[in-house]
Amino acid sequence: MAREIIRQLPYEEIVYLGDNSRCPYGPRPIEQVRSFTWEMTDFLLEEKNIKMLVIACNTATAAVYEEIKRSLPIPVIGVVHPGARSAIKVTKTGHIGVIGTIGTIQSEAYNEALLSIDGNVRITGLSCPPFVPLVESGELDSAKTERIISETLCSLKDDVKIDTLILGCTHYPLLRPAIQKVLGNKIELIDSGEETAREVSTILYHKGIARQSNYVPRHRFYTTGSPKMMGAMASEWLGFLPSVTTVSLPLSYKRV
Amino acid sequence: MAREIIRQLPYEEIVYLGDNSRCPYGPRPIEQVRSFTWEMTDFLLEEKNIKMLVIACNTATAAVYEEIKRSLPIPVIGVVHPGARSAIKVTKTGHIGVIGTIGTIQSEAYNEALLSIDGNVRITGLSCPPFVPLVESGELDSAKTERIISETLCSLKDDVKIDTLILGCTHYPLLRPAIQKVLGNKIELIDSGEETAREVSTILYHKGIARQSNYVPRHRFYTTGSPKMMGAMASEWLGFLPSVTTVSLPLSYKRV
Repeated sequence: MAREIIRQLPYEEIVYLGDNSRCPYGPRPIEQVRSFTWEMTDFLLEEKNIKMLVIACNTATAAVYEEIKRSLPIPVIGVVHPGARSAIKVTKTGHIGVIGTIGTIQSEAYNEALLSIDGNVRITGLSCPPFVPLVESGELDSAKTERIISETLCSLKDDVKIDTLILGCTHYPLLRPAIQKVLGNKIELIDSGEETAREVSTILYHKGIARQSNYVPRHRFYTTGSPKMMGAMASEWLGFLPSVTTVSLPLSYKRV
Repeated sequence: MAREIIRQLPYEEIVYLGDNSRCPYGPRPIEQVRSFTWEMTDFLLEEKNIKMLVIACNTATAAVYEEIKRSLPIPVIGVVHPGARSAIKVTKTGHIGVIGTIGTIQSEAYNEALLSIDGNVRITGLSCPPFVPLVESGELDSAKTERIISETLCSLKDDVKIDTLILGCTHYPLLRPAIQKVLGNKIELIDSGEETAREVSTILYHKGIARQSNYVPRHRFYTTGSPKMMGAMASEWLGFLPSVTTVSLPLSYKRV
């Protein structure tokens, strides 16, 4: 997601906060996801003077996006609606698949978003618990990975006539080539991160707050976990090792 | 474009005004395009109480979009920026082609939009005067059509290493299969109309003015030309023949 924003909006400056000490959010109770997401929002809003907030996690978006959007004076973008809008654009049959963590699929956030746009689409959701561990192990294209993907997706592959599949977790695009191979080329895969970056561009432009000059941005990275790990991860997007600052959440003062 | 909005946003109601008695706008002087577009805008705004204006023509967008956007109290969407944003999302090589009418290509509106987002993209523009007459003749996939497309696009095909091509005229998507056949599958075609409909969805949602209920819309069609021709055209999108009302522009009173 951050990589896509940097690629599609090369003049914009990112303040990135990863809650690495408390992730994954997927299995946590919704009230905890809500409170953690608000803590992160407060840090970015009160300490970093951001002009737009992107909630770059499906679980957090499903849990607390609408509430944060209503409360903040700046535009707030979540990952669910951009993926849903793109799927509606792409589907010909009107039958859309969604894969994600158990939390995201159980929340039915994608179903709500899709049906609010078009009550006639058919939706098949499938949670894919093995996928995040696969990505985190770095094994993205081995025979074992392909076998696990094939087993996990077999109900989508064999029983259901979807023509569009939303990758409803920010980890899944790294498995995209393997997923496409398993499902074949007739199913179009939607990368929520890519689509969200594109909507960030749309909203910045329509609000008149996009940078239009040849500005060289200085991205800033913060983590609640190990700066070394976050730095290594961010260096893959940027081509150089950025400095990463540690943050303790919650902040010692409260949002008024 | 209207078809795409109806498809992607089935609850939204369209008030469509086609300036059929004065089109095509492509070859007209820019001041005339500007004044015609304002006349159409005034009709929709003052008579029809619209919540959003879509300027569904590349020539009109290139000529007067920024001015209308600044002046109106409602969101205004043009076709150029959505196509540009989508091309930036899709390109891997950073080399983007744009085809359009002579007016659109000469205006360099796509170049400005693309470069404002990313100064490093390379852009190759090509005007395609034979394409609109081809579409209007209805000959979309004959051998003659393919030959004309191949001849018109030969400089893009042979000399230039674009990987993304913006169809920068609302007529061109009807030639899409033939253009794709001529250029091969390695070049991704961007349909500005499809992308604009998707941005309409984004902006309606973020402004909180999207219809979310199971509302059955009653689209209304107006033309400055023949209601019969417009009705026949609209019936292709809708599956039934709508009633079309004739409008005389300019209105007898002036915008204050």
